[in-house]
Amino acid sequence: MRVLITGAAGMIGRKLTESIVRQGHLGGREVTALDLTDVVAPTPPEGAPEGLREAADISAPDTAARLIGRRPDVIVHLAAIPSGGAEEFFEKGYAVNFDGTRFLLEAIRAEGLAEPYCPKVVFSSTIAVFGAPFPDRIGDEFICAPLTSYGAQKVMGEMLVCDYTRRGFLDGIAIRLPTICIRPGKPNLAASGFFSNILREPLAGRPANLPVAEDVRHWFASPRAAVGFIHHAVEMDLTRLGPRRAINMPGLSATVTEEIEALRRVAGEKAVALITREPDPAIIEIVAGWPRDFHPRRALDLGFRAERSFDEIIRAHIEDELGGEIPVNA
Amino acid sequence: MRVLITGAAGMIGRKLTESIVRQGHLGGREVTALDLTDVVAPTPPEGAPEGLREAADISAPDTAARLIGRRPDVIVHLAAIPSGGAEEFFEKGYAVNFDGTRFLLEAIRAEGLAEPYCPKVVFSSTIAVFGAPFPDRIGDEFICAPLTSYGAQKVMGEMLVCDYTRRGFLDGIAIRLPTICIRPGKPNLAASGFFSNILREPLAGRPANLPVAEDVRHWFASPRAAVGFIHHAVEMDLTRLGPRRAINMPGLSATVTEEIEALRRVAGEKAVALITREPDPAIIEIVAGWPRDFHPRRALDLGFRAERSFDEIIRAHIEDELGGEIPVNA
Repeated sequence: MRVLITGAAGMIGRKLTESIVRQGHLGGREVTALDLTDVVAPTPPEGAPEGLREAADISAPDTAARLIGRRPDVIVHLAAIPSGGAEEFFEKGYAVNFDGTRFLLEAIRAEGLAEPYCPKVVFSSTIAVFGAPFPDRIGDEFICAPLTSYGAQKVMGEMLVCDYTRRGFLDGIAIRLPTICIRPGKPNLAASGFFSNILREPLAGRPANLPVAEDVRHWFASPRAAVGFIHHAVEMDLTRLGPRRAINMPGLSATVTEEIEALRRVAGEKAVALITREPDPAIIEIVAGWPRDFHPRRALDLGFRAERSFDEIIRAHIEDELGGEIPVNA
Repeated sequence: MRVLITGAAGMIGRKLTESIVRQGHLGGREVTALDLTDVVAPTPPEGAPEGLREAADISAPDTAARLIGRRPDVIVHLAAIPSGGAEEFFEKGYAVNFDGTRFLLEAIRAEGLAEPYCPKVVFSSTIAVFGAPFPDRIGDEFICAPLTSYGAQKVMGEMLVCDYTRRGFLDGIAIRLPTICIRPGKPNLAASGFFSNILREPLAGRPANLPVAEDVRHWFASPRAAVGFIHHAVEMDLTRLGPRRAINMPGLSATVTEEIEALRRVAGEKAVALITREPDPAIIEIVAGWPRDFHPRRALDLGFRAERSFDEIIRAHIEDELGGEIPVNA
């Protein structure tokens, strides 16, 4: 089958591409063509199936028609301006996160009007569709009341995915990803960055700052789990979801203390000693408005799986990013 | 102040206009200019304040700029393709119900970029933002999972109203109206039409059919209550809502039996005898997926009020539509 990935040069996009190339399939179905697009042209690993590698702006009205004209069987729509960017650049956020999604779905509908076509669409959504106040554990029927433009744009995209699915134009699912941890790469300035920084950096022998109290609780899944969600979404019969095609993915609810204790167990005291503790009032305030825990019953019933401990999350990072070694202990 | 009403020729639009002209104010604030627009040019009652009466297509990109260029202090956005129409005409539904709303909010934002401007916006939303299955009573934190394109478009509009408000571009509220009963005028083909038909027609001495079982329960407010919600929304300090600017309006949860018993009390056996009972399987199925009851705690706390019995709803109809007389008993 032909697969299109938007946002293919991003962190999840690259990991998904690698897993497709390594396994030869996506969700159990052989991938014979792989179209990759992002704001910069993605470079797939060696051995990738043939296909487009194109720098494209999905907020431009004719990009989607060109991509969909190749009639991919599966579309994984990851492209987005992240939360901070969508907050800073109002128009660009709506253009990419909302209009880009709508153009893509409209191109699918138009393609199907010309000749029957009903591809599977996996839309990357987020727990940022929720805004405080919320219960200690957010259930599957809790209201979407985002407190960022990014969250609003994702809810609007979810509505389109559900409505276009109900209308028979496509077969869609919107997966609401937990905060991805441990994010590989360099520390970034995202308010959530420290959750990853305080594990990734000490594992590599570098210091990292914890700007909040240790009892802060949040909702996590590893990059490996996120890629697994996408495989599972492509593999499963989406009609099992009924008309509610936007669902909370499973994750791990954990405190910073639990992160640090897992780091201690996996990498020892030397790693833990690299964590500094300088409170940052701005980050403390932002994080106070974030979800702490979910009860993702539907996703679990449907067979989606995430890590069950931070030990697992850290080990996945060591295997996937560090070649099985722990530099701080080398 | 200057008020703009879109959808001013519709049922709620006309009643709102009449109440403004009769009272001279909207939500306690004097109306000195009243701009009215709809797909046909609205004709206000005599004595209406000066202002635009314009046939305009709000799904055309430059309509909104022209309307907002007059810098109304309050905008009541009622214009919409109803549920059945949005289901039948996919593109037109999105164009009017979603793009029309977005153009309006974008025109407000653009106006404010040129010179400070932050009007109050009352957006007419609907209980069609909810889709089955739901609890017997829907609370203020229940998920929006519409089962119609109309419902999806309204959720998307709500998201914009909330986000544009949070950003400071406008001061918005989305009021989710119950099913309006008794709708004046002729019986229409809407699936919900019978709820009104079985009261309005017998009151006028004409027969009407009940196509569902008497134990069907649904959620109602009179046209008078709907106009009252808008007055209250304009009167109140919307910052009391916090960032969640979309709220379920109060209403009356009642069964068809309760409708009929109220009709009997208010208009007597002769009226009730005009109700025929031919089941319609299509309507039975549609209505089974509709909300039955709400617990609109936020709206009640904020002072929104609806009727508490069908007797009140029927009496409001007799006063507002029938000049205080009951034709069937004349």
